[in-house]
Amino acid sequence: MSIWPILQDDQLSPRAAAVIADIRATRKTDFINNFWRVLANDPALLERTWASLKEVMAPGALDPLVKEMLYVAVSIANGCEYCIRSHTTAARAKGMSEEQLGELLAVVGMASETNRLATGLQVPVDHAFLPGETV
Amino acid sequence: MSIWPILQDDQLSPRAAAVIADIRATRKTDFINNFWRVLANDPALLERTWASLKEVMAPGALDPLVKEMLYVAVSIANGCEYCIRSHTTAARAKGMSEEQLGELLAVVGMASETNRLATGLQVPVDHAFLPGETV
Amino acid sequence: MSIWPILQDDQLSPRAAAVIADIRATRKTDFINNFWRVLANDPALLERTWASLKEVMAPGALDPLVKEMLYVAVSIANGCEYCIRSHTTAARAKGMSEEQLGELLAVVGMASETNRLATGLQVPVDHAFLPGETV
Amino acid sequence: MSIWPILQDDQLSPRAAAVIADIRATRKTDFINNFWRVLANDPALLERTWASLKEVMAPGALDPLVKEMLYVAVSIANGCEYCIRSHTTAARAKGMSEEQLGELLAVVGMASETNRLATGLQVPVDHAFLPGETV
Amino acid sequence: MSIWPILQDDQLSPRAAAVIADIRATRKTDFINNFWRVLANDPALLERTWASLKEVMAPGALDPLVKEMLYVAVSIANGCEYCIRSHTTAARAKGMSEEQLGELLAVVGMASETNRLATGLQVPVDHAFLPGETV
Amino acid sequence: MSIWPILQDDQLSPRAAAVIADIRATRKTDFINNFWRVLANDPALLERTWASLKEVMAPGALDPLVKEMLYVAVSIANGCEYCIRSHTTAARAKGMSEEQLGELLAVVGMASETNRLATGLQVPVDHAFLPGETV
Repeated sequence: MSIWPILQDDQLSPRAAAVIADIRATRKTDFINNFWRVLANDPALLERTWASLKEVMAPGALDPLVKEMLYVAVSIANGCEYCIRSHTTAARAKGMSEEQLGELLAVVGMASETNRLATGLQVPVDHAFLPGETV
Repeated sequence: MSIWPILQDDQLSPRAAAVIADIRATRKTDFINNFWRVLANDPALLERTWASLKEVMAPGALDPLVKEMLYVAVSIANGCEYCIRSHTTAARAKGMSEEQLGELLAVVGMASETNRLATGLQVPVDHAFLPGETV
Repeated sequence: MSIWPILQDDQLSPRAAAVIADIRATRKTDFINNFWRVLANDPALLERTWASLKEVMAPGALDPLVKEMLYVAVSIANGCEYCIRSHTTAARAKGMSEEQLGELLAVVGMASETNRLATGLQVPVDHAFLPGETV
Repeated sequence: MSIWPILQDDQLSPRAAAVIADIRATRKTDFINNFWRVLANDPALLERTWASLKEVMAPGALDPLVKEMLYVAVSIANGCEYCIRSHTTAARAKGMSEEQLGELLAVVGMASETNRLATGLQVPVDHAFLPGETV
Repeated sequence: MSIWPILQDDQLSPRAAAVIADIRATRKTDFINNFWRVLANDPALLERTWASLKEVMAPGALDPLVKEMLYVAVSIANGCEYCIRSHTTAARAKGMSEEQLGELLAVVGMASETNRLATGLQVPVDHAFLPGETV
Repeated sequence: MSIWPILQDDQLSPRAAAVIADIRATRKTDFINNFWRVLANDPALLERTWASLKEVMAPGALDPLVKEMLYVAVSIANGCEYCIRSHTTAARAKGMSEEQLGELLAVVGMASETNRLATGLQVPVDHAFLPGETV
């Protein structure tokens, strides 16, 4: 019961079908999750979102598993169930152990706690943390 | 101009002084940043927060740099300037390159964008992402 | 299974019933959605919330459809499923096309992405954006 | 004192300079605000962010002023000062009156209030608000 | 450098002046803080906001100090510096001790931590926590 | 269908079992809610989280009911359904009346509204609200 229907392959416009085909080719799997099938109702939005995600999540200076874990952490902070579940699945597929997930959760929880303490107390930034300064 | 004063070493209660001493010993530096000096006004809060942070950020299944980067990502999502600046500094000290920071920011931005799209469209979670199910 | 029961018409206090009657008269429909039926358990809260909403959402310098779209955008950013669904329905009833919804979602996603980039990089505000200054 | 330096024109890499040139050409002004000058430290991030923004904010089914107002509303909900100030400036440049800004703020405030009430009371979504159902 | 100017008494419209006079009478002080002086640029928004705040913060089933502390807690979670500082000041004026503030901060931090853990792990709600059920 | 399984008593590691036993002893009830049964998959996380919660929520300068209400308020602002339901149940068990819950919700809603207005208008903090200054 998403806001837009979950499109099946034979319901895709040519522009959306081309994006879906690229997702399959890039990920080397036939499986297309609901996020893309719903976005496919707006081919321009689908195309742009996939192009950005493909570029951002590609291997680079950070390895793909670290990127997936960062994605999970942000999704928790933003409160998005869909993204938590899909990117936790992706992180596990890329090798995240349950022990690593436990530590990820501990950091997310701890950061959220100290974020609120620093904000609640309005702690001023130390000179040592400002660019161009040294301890 | 924090809500509580930034305490100097000679203003610490014995209980707070013991925590500050442990921070110095653990981090092998004399520098104590404002966060701890402000928390020191409530020794119980200081003691518990430091004990938790020390445990959570210690090396484990995730390496300390990954933990710092997760901390930065969550702090951005939660909008805490102090924490963004202090943990970006810490991540750089642990070896984060500017190229890695750029990728971290790209993931945080991308996740925030797709978090809103998935939430805005109320995309239902795929069976494949639920525990106990397989693609 | 809301925190308070969903009150039916014959369960309303006189004060709540008067508000519900005004909602029906203002909206020219008999249908009362769950939000108001749950708020009705606290007649003062119901009365104040409705009075404010009625004033804020009335036609003014912004047309009612733009107001509904702003409501949807904020509800996505705040992560409120109920509000996303109810105000998307309202916006469609006021004429929002699916193409417009797609653009709304694109802006919400894009803003969330750049919000995080600007916050993560702590970009200082340009003088040109401060009141009283000109480019 | 942003996390990355604010690059001047003569400090840009060729790839970043090309993006900056396109921003100037698209906006028909020489002025480049700090957001882009800071992003320019990571040319790939700059290029992708600008390409997306240019596409998303172009005239379409929604007029550019409505898009700017949606941007402001989301930036307020996400708590990003830079984005609030830059997009309020942009909205005014596109014709937003102070009266319209007042109504925008009223809707953002009201939505945030009722978002919390609906979440706090865990109000279930009405059948009438689910796709495929009718009142 | 707020988005709208901080109006002085002699710059108020008659409608805004009446609201400001009521704030002074209700609070039994001549001091009017910037929030109201900025809102005064939109007399309808000022009038409605003050009427609601006056009603919500009045003594009732919760005492005014508890209400101020709830206000501070929410303002921290929402990341609003102005509101954190103004309502912390108000809570102190109503008798909040520094020890109570420390406990308030500890609860806000702890709740934020466990909120993220419960969300990150997608813990299902126990039957015992649903209305109409008993342990 | 949480991310980690809901462990039954006979599935607990010795370290987790000891924590669960302490929860039962502290709360004087056999009932253990899902949050702890899911956290039990990571005994270190369970142990630390419980130790902190036990300390933070103990009677102190604030009475336990006020602490529970602050917990509910923060959980609403952070959008955590599990925490809203569990801590509302706990607050009722400690004596919160429905009238008090209504006022709590009114404050949370009002604070969220004015938080957005103050942020949206970028109202500068009054000198009177800064430490060391007086009205």
